Amino acid sequence: MLKKYQKLIKALHQKKFRNEEGLFLVEGEKSVIELLTAKNNMNPIKAEALFYTEKFAQTHHKFLTTFQKQVTYNELVTQNILESVGTLQTNDSAMVVAHIPPNNPLTIKQEMVLALADIRDPGNLGTITRIADWYGISKLVCSETTTDFYAPKVIAATMGSFLRVKAYYCDLGTYLSENKHLPIYGAFLDGKNIYEQTFEKQGIIVIGNESNGIPAALESLITHRLTIPRFGQAESLNAGIATAIFCDNWRRCIGK
Amino acid sequence: MLKKYQKLIKALHQKKFRNEEGLFLVEGEKSVIELLTAKNNMNPIKAEALFYTEKFAQTHHKFLTTFQKQVTYNELVTQNILESVGTLQTNDSAMVVAHIPPNNPLTIKQEMVLALADIRDPGNLGTITRIADWYGISKLVCSETTTDFYAPKVIAATMGSFLRVKAYYCDLGTYLSENKHLPIYGAFLDGKNIYEQTFEKQGIIVIGNESNGIPAALESLITHRLTIPRFGQAESLNAGIATAIFCDNWRRCIGK
Repeated sequence: MLKKYQKLIKALHQKKFRNEEGLFLVEGEKSVIELLTAKNNMNPIKAEALFYTEKFAQTHHKFLTTFQKQVTYNELVTQNILESVGTLQTNDSAMVVAHIPPNNPLTIKQEMVLALADIRDPGNLGTITRIADWYGISKLVCSETTTDFYAPKVIAATMGSFLRVKAYYCDLGTYLSENKHLPIYGAFLDGKNIYEQTFEKQGIIVIGNESNGIPAALESLITHRLTIPRFGQAESLNAGIATAIFCDNWRRCIGK
Repeated sequence: MLKKYQKLIKALHQKKFRNEEGLFLVEGEKSVIELLTAKNNMNPIKAEALFYTEKFAQTHHKFLTTFQKQVTYNELVTQNILESVGTLQTNDSAMVVAHIPPNNPLTIKQEMVLALADIRDPGNLGTITRIADWYGISKLVCSETTTDFYAPKVIAATMGSFLRVKAYYCDLGTYLSENKHLPIYGAFLDGKNIYEQTFEKQGIIVIGNESNGIPAALESLITHRLTIPRFGQAESLNAGIATAIFCDNWRRCIGK
């Protein structure tokens, strides 16, 4: 592998360098293939460089030329090299260096968006993205304190959904204030039973921090305080599970 | 720390030795405190030995004598020792060596139970246990291929719910056959929309393997093939999320 890329890829493990370079890493067969074959995407992520193993070349030999044309640089490398420069423990397939899309404001059309208030765990952010994608939600509005969407662990945990769900980082208080004509749903211990809530098709679901829930500063902006009823004794549900329950109850209510 | 316990605790990282000794590890403040203060539990887990730091002793000085009386052996140790013999990266609090309860068959009363068909990831098993506890489900019937409930990673991921949810390992095909008079629900890609299902209060929800779903050998035993409707393009939901959606839809349907 070119020395220049070895250095770049290692730097891209860190948020600071991702921001400086405007680039991030996509690792492993599933994510790389989804990226290189993504169609009809409103906001496609552009690949810059592709590194692939002999195994990847053999498995995808029919499309390899098409893949190679999409990138400025490509190189056949060993599994050892992919693993030594990348973040995955095992990667016998491929890696792409891709361009971070611009942090464009997301306007809310006839749709539900998720607002993430201080989600710290990369695995949780990835899982939430995958759940959003399952339920047909394509926009995440993230507080500045939410972990970086383009971190390798997040991208891996989205299982390819990072291509269909956009993340926009901003001051969440300002964003919610600007959208206060819409219903803004959030989970609280003393909220109304979510089973009794009639959801609108359009609005915002706010997902709070893993330990502290929705920050106090945002509380007054929530128009619908809801509770997932508890029938046993577990103290809490994790942020990913709570997101899934909110999305499922929303979809169940509004239908298709 | 006594040499004897150092050796024992390290051995208990492995399933083989947990089974030989009939003992397992409970690590960290939350789990240890829940274990030592558990009340009215139908199947309490007996603590054998308690190791605690100076910090734990100070925080819980009011109850320390009570805690000490519950165990055969107790010892004040340093954080370094807890971390070197245990499995947690950080543990400045306490650890208990506890007795694995007998693997007694679980009969189904007027209740829902979860049947786990080949759940391999310890984190998933822990999360499923916590979700079961939230929704008031206290019994897990696990295939022999399901990862060990008493593994340190599972116990940690249950966040204390291991004290309120029992696990029974058996041949799942036989178990389902013996309970075929009950509704047996399972997730399939071609099932009926779960939103249209009327659930019974009593029955079994079968949760399949992370990659392969419900094993083919069990398919014919499922009386209700259900699908969580998908509105976007994610390929799948993980086993924990699917469990939460099933439990939530069941509870929403039957009420209290």
